[in-house]
Amino acid sequence: MRTDGREKDQLRHIEIETGYVKHPEGSVLITVGETKVICNASIEERVPPFMRNSGKGWITAEYSMLPRATETRNIRESSKGKISGRTMEIQRLIGRALRAVVDLDALGERTIWIDCDVIQADGGTRTASITGAFVAMAIALAKLQDSKKISSFPLKSFLAATSVGIVEEHGAVLDLNYIEDSSALVDMNIIMTGEGEFVELQGTGEEATFTMDQLHQLLKLGQVGIHELFQIQQQSLGDIVKRFQ
Amino acid sequence: MRTDGREKDQLRHIEIETGYVKHPEGSVLITVGETKVICNASIEERVPPFMRNSGKGWITAEYSMLPRATETRNIRESSKGKISGRTMEIQRLIGRALRAVVDLDALGERTIWIDCDVIQADGGTRTASITGAFVAMAIALAKLQDSKKISSFPLKSFLAATSVGIVEEHGAVLDLNYIEDSSALVDMNIIMTGEGEFVELQGTGEEATFTMDQLHQLLKLGQVGIHELFQIQQQSLGDIVKRFQ
Amino acid sequence: MRTDGREKDQLRHIEIETGYVKHPEGSVLITVGETKVICNASIEERVPPFMRNSGKGWITAEYSMLPRATETRNIRESSKGKISGRTMEIQRLIGRALRAVVDLDALGERTIWIDCDVIQADGGTRTASITGAFVAMAIALAKLQDSKKISSFPLKSFLAATSVGIVEEHGAVLDLNYIEDSSALVDMNIIMTGEGEFVELQGTGEEATFTMDQLHQLLKLGQVGIHELFQIQQQSLGDIVKRFQ
Amino acid sequence: MRTDGREKDQLRHIEIETGYVKHPEGSVLITVGETKVICNASIEERVPPFMRNSGKGWITAEYSMLPRATETRNIRESSKGKISGRTMEIQRLIGRALRAVVDLDALGERTIWIDCDVIQADGGTRTASITGAFVAMAIALAKLQDSKKISSFPLKSFLAATSVGIVEEHGAVLDLNYIEDSSALVDMNIIMTGEGEFVELQGTGEEATFTMDQLHQLLKLGQVGIHELFQIQQQSLGDIVKRFQ
Amino acid sequence: MRTDGREKDQLRHIEIETGYVKHPEGSVLITVGETKVICNASIEERVPPFMRNSGKGWITAEYSMLPRATETRNIRESSKGKISGRTMEIQRLIGRALRAVVDLDALGERTIWIDCDVIQADGGTRTASITGAFVAMAIALAKLQDSKKISSFPLKSFLAATSVGIVEEHGAVLDLNYIEDSSALVDMNIIMTGEGEFVELQGTGEEATFTMDQLHQLLKLGQVGIHELFQIQQQSLGDIVKRFQ
Amino acid sequence: MRTDGREKDQLRHIEIETGYVKHPEGSVLITVGETKVICNASIEERVPPFMRNSGKGWITAEYSMLPRATETRNIRESSKGKISGRTMEIQRLIGRALRAVVDLDALGERTIWIDCDVIQADGGTRTASITGAFVAMAIALAKLQDSKKISSFPLKSFLAATSVGIVEEHGAVLDLNYIEDSSALVDMNIIMTGEGEFVELQGTGEEATFTMDQLHQLLKLGQVGIHELFQIQQQSLGDIVKRFQ
Repeated sequence: MRTDGREKDQLRHIEIETGYVKHPEGSVLITVGETKVICNASIEERVPPFMRNSGKGWITAEYSMLPRATETRNIRESSKGKISGRTMEIQRLIGRALRAVVDLDALGERTIWIDCDVIQADGGTRTASITGAFVAMAIALAKLQDSKKISSFPLKSFLAATSVGIVEEHGAVLDLNYIEDSSALVDMNIIMTGEGEFVELQGTGEEATFTMDQLHQLLKLGQVGIHELFQIQQQSLGDIVKRFQ
Repeated sequence: MRTDGREKDQLRHIEIETGYVKHPEGSVLITVGETKVICNASIEERVPPFMRNSGKGWITAEYSMLPRATETRNIRESSKGKISGRTMEIQRLIGRALRAVVDLDALGERTIWIDCDVIQADGGTRTASITGAFVAMAIALAKLQDSKKISSFPLKSFLAATSVGIVEEHGAVLDLNYIEDSSALVDMNIIMTGEGEFVELQGTGEEATFTMDQLHQLLKLGQVGIHELFQIQQQSLGDIVKRFQ
Repeated sequence: MRTDGREKDQLRHIEIETGYVKHPEGSVLITVGETKVICNASIEERVPPFMRNSGKGWITAEYSMLPRATETRNIRESSKGKISGRTMEIQRLIGRALRAVVDLDALGERTIWIDCDVIQADGGTRTASITGAFVAMAIALAKLQDSKKISSFPLKSFLAATSVGIVEEHGAVLDLNYIEDSSALVDMNIIMTGEGEFVELQGTGEEATFTMDQLHQLLKLGQVGIHELFQIQQQSLGDIVKRFQ
Repeated sequence: MRTDGREKDQLRHIEIETGYVKHPEGSVLITVGETKVICNASIEERVPPFMRNSGKGWITAEYSMLPRATETRNIRESSKGKISGRTMEIQRLIGRALRAVVDLDALGERTIWIDCDVIQADGGTRTASITGAFVAMAIALAKLQDSKKISSFPLKSFLAATSVGIVEEHGAVLDLNYIEDSSALVDMNIIMTGEGEFVELQGTGEEATFTMDQLHQLLKLGQVGIHELFQIQQQSLGDIVKRFQ
Repeated sequence: MRTDGREKDQLRHIEIETGYVKHPEGSVLITVGETKVICNASIEERVPPFMRNSGKGWITAEYSMLPRATETRNIRESSKGKISGRTMEIQRLIGRALRAVVDLDALGERTIWIDCDVIQADGGTRTASITGAFVAMAIALAKLQDSKKISSFPLKSFLAATSVGIVEEHGAVLDLNYIEDSSALVDMNIIMTGEGEFVELQGTGEEATFTMDQLHQLLKLGQVGIHELFQIQQQSLGDIVKRFQ
Repeated sequence: MRTDGREKDQLRHIEIETGYVKHPEGSVLITVGETKVICNASIEERVPPFMRNSGKGWITAEYSMLPRATETRNIRESSKGKISGRTMEIQRLIGRALRAVVDLDALGERTIWIDCDVIQADGGTRTASITGAFVAMAIALAKLQDSKKISSFPLKSFLAATSVGIVEEHGAVLDLNYIEDSSALVDMNIIMTGEGEFVELQGTGEEATFTMDQLHQLLKLGQVGIHELFQIQQQSLGDIVKRFQ
């Protein structure tokens, strides 16, 4: 049994509250155990310079943590005057992952801004951000379709993410919390589509390495977790689910 | 009657939810109408360089808005790489106001970090921040006293803030929402102690001016509102209220 | 008697030297006791992006101190690579105050840049800046009218500023010098129009608070001082005074 | 046959020239087809603050491209005043990978700085950097051991990296050049130890996804390529190879 | 005759007003024709890190222009958030030149900060800065000696600077004003000691070149001008002149 | 005899390897003793804003050192987030010098970007950069002429640079290496055209001064060295030499 009483292949308790903030086109609060992230999707009627006149849309993400989302207070990146490498890596990952399931031609020349703001952190903030941002984006796109600005629903598939890892006492486990994550030998983030294909796979062992066998165990756990996440996303989306072909 | 049906001297609906985020020593979500601010108070066991060896504590505040707290999305200050003049002004105001009611000698050489993060904005974010931050700080200080790190409760008085202003149709009104605020001729922020004294008074008329008479009307409305805010703060603080002499 | 021998309601010796620097459209050196500020007004034939095609003009101010304007040398903000919160607050205040007395429609789509550079500081630099900048701006606008670029004189009223405060030994006093300012219990900046209306009122008590009674004493002192400043401004403006209706 | 005539499982021509620059403790020029990277390893006799008094060493990497390493000139990051997300991601990856094969206790409280400067780019610059940096680091560590500052050789294993990917016409291929990389459906970087274990695995499909089957093909190709890279690294290291147990 | 009626070998009218600002240890306003620069010298009782424990002092200079020192307004470097290449070049030049005539051992471990702030510019601001800064520094050092912090006067020699150049109509001329400077074919700054030796020589022809003959003419003119500057410096220094051996 | 066995008027061994990097229009590696600089010339079909619609071209240079080009590792300027004064000075010098020999009208509205990246430093990096950059630029311009984008060859003259200085034991010497440079009493950079005229002359004596006599010795040595550099440049340019009239 893990420190919080879960089985190795068991996700933490997950909730996705939609309509969390009133202004954004799509807004959810995703809760994964003690991790809480506000995911807002905003639609802007233009694209960045490098996409102009392409006829295609763009999706870009920003990620931030409140200074006291963590056990000890972190200095704000706005006070430091620059964004850390970790933040950059995460926001590039979120944007890239979401773009994989959007038909950018059907979106047309507009940008979806995804803002993931972690208000409480307990491990797995980047995967929670992706899972929640997908829902916020789907809601925003449904609203866009309702307004007749686009004719078809531009989402090609579902998308969710989770972490898996190898921890000393238990071997391969699903959905690591902060304590597990900070002592894990291997840490892997898996992002998959509703069709069960990989969008991104990032496995790393800072002080350890992993074998092909261990890789397989991790991938299997990830598939189990992501399948469950799809259920929760579908419930939170209600009728919007029908717009996916 | 005002756009949202209130009387001229009526506050919006206000709620203060304590224990909102788990890590900070004090954490509240304050809701003032449609304005929502997370106020976290963190205690750090050291002071900034200019206060070292003074035997006194320090209180410093940071303020930020989520990009989509507002009707249109704002660029993050961390992405811009610098903090705007407006943000600086607000966080200096919050810190200064809170310091006015804390016995810095009784606090000892430690810093209270106040983080006010606006997740939804509809006018009055700076006064909501101060009113909420006071509660978060009181909770953090009670915890500090419970841990025996300080012997006496270092709060000298209650502190709350509200805005008043002059709007074209109604004249002087209390607690402006965003629509009122953006068309107000005069805008004034009032911060007062539980003893009914002023801590700070900031009145400004960008395209208008105001007379001594109007000033008096505004001050009177402010006193009414702040008195009510003290009631709500007291309810949210429960037994901690008894620690004030 | 105060440290420099003044009465409680007595301003320091004030001089406004016009034509101080040759290039700007308006340029004055204002001396308030030992405080000296160069105030330059420059006219630019365009407005910032957010004002384009509005048909209206804009006024913006920048404020800076020479590193050795003060007793100990300050690091230049250009060397630090960023502007301090204090500087931002002051330059926002100067711009906002001046805009209150300018008819921006009559100004047309042009910007007046106000540069206030403190070469020697002894308290009251922000109010001296406003009082001096008003004169520099009036001169620049007269020149603009002489050149036929605008048909009417766009100043609606006079504008001056002073500080008042409560100091331990003397109670409420007018026009604080640096020594008084640094030990003041309450510090208030008052900006008024020639018609005797308030443009801005900023009162703050960092380690103290103030009552309604004290507020009234401070406002009264401020009115006395500002009335005198108007006389000095008028003398320095000469015939330009006639352009005000 | 691929655009440059290679088989699907064939690396480009690879050379590792040691002693390229005279000052660094270890310096190589690695050439992978038309990609050329100078990899320098510098030893500093202290560690960053977060490692002090741990008794352990640290390895940190920086990565940069000459502005004209690419077909069109890029703006220098020093001129922009900030490092791009891509650069941050790459330098974090290089440092993390190298740390996986170093016994940081045996290294003692010193830092190895790895500088990877791409002078000509044709795809695969990050994997070339890792493969080359490993050799530069091994040389620097051998020199450190020769100087008696450390008693044992702190490298636990060999380390090399390559890229694999899925391209439209050929399916899974090894060691993508720039043309292949820019049209690849899936792109994966694989970093492995001399023992054949994974250190890092990063697979991404921006406009595509990949199946478990495809993942296996890619991993197999990667293993083939990395095995060959170990041969080339060994030749370039000469007698230093004997220091590995 | 030149545009302002001067002979080819004639300096503009020069004045050095001492005691211009009250706080600095040394302060002068130097006027060279229409160019006006405030030169302040501040003494700090410590040296930068790279000089610590050397027993020697250091001299460092900063240079800035008020935004409207020139015909058209320049953006402040503090607003831009960085110092231009031109400013850096000038402040490095001023510091280097002054260090050439100071006995840094006799100064002891303290720093002299030189601040040159141009309030009105009409060509030759960098040479005026050096000539004025020398006087401000001499006054500050005399004060330091009077306070018994140093036993001997640490200035080894006088130091002054001027510009010479080749202009189309007149050939080689001394002390160029802005109009001459902006059309000059060759521009040269000469810095010399009281003993008639060169400290720095910077000649440049952006769109032209110059021969050895022209170089000689320029050097001769420079010597004439600098000799005259020494007279003016001596008058402004009064009795301090006697401290030079 | 000097530390490296050279005569006082002897250059170090110099090589100019053309076609060093494949992407730039002109690319050389210049080796001056142990100093090695990659000089790339890139042609961009537009000019900076201040040159638009002038019909003229522009030349701009950037200079950088690899962190470990020197004996001890330097922090990257991209990591520091700003460019040092020394770098700015050097890149301004390189651009200014090259512009002196280019017919900017004949170049037309395009920019030549010069990138000088020092991969190994042993003194004289700025003069080596100019000498090498001239060759890279000539090659790029020949290519531009071959492509028929310009009708005439826009180079008016050859250009080369060297350093001379006064060192304690030997007096005036040519082409100082790092050891000589760091102990030199006087250091002078000389840039000349193929016609033997000066483009720029920068002589400085930080802790020493120099007489008119010494100046003459230095200039004479510089002429000797630059004459030799022209021979080497001509050999590396081959047939391109014929394009100069």
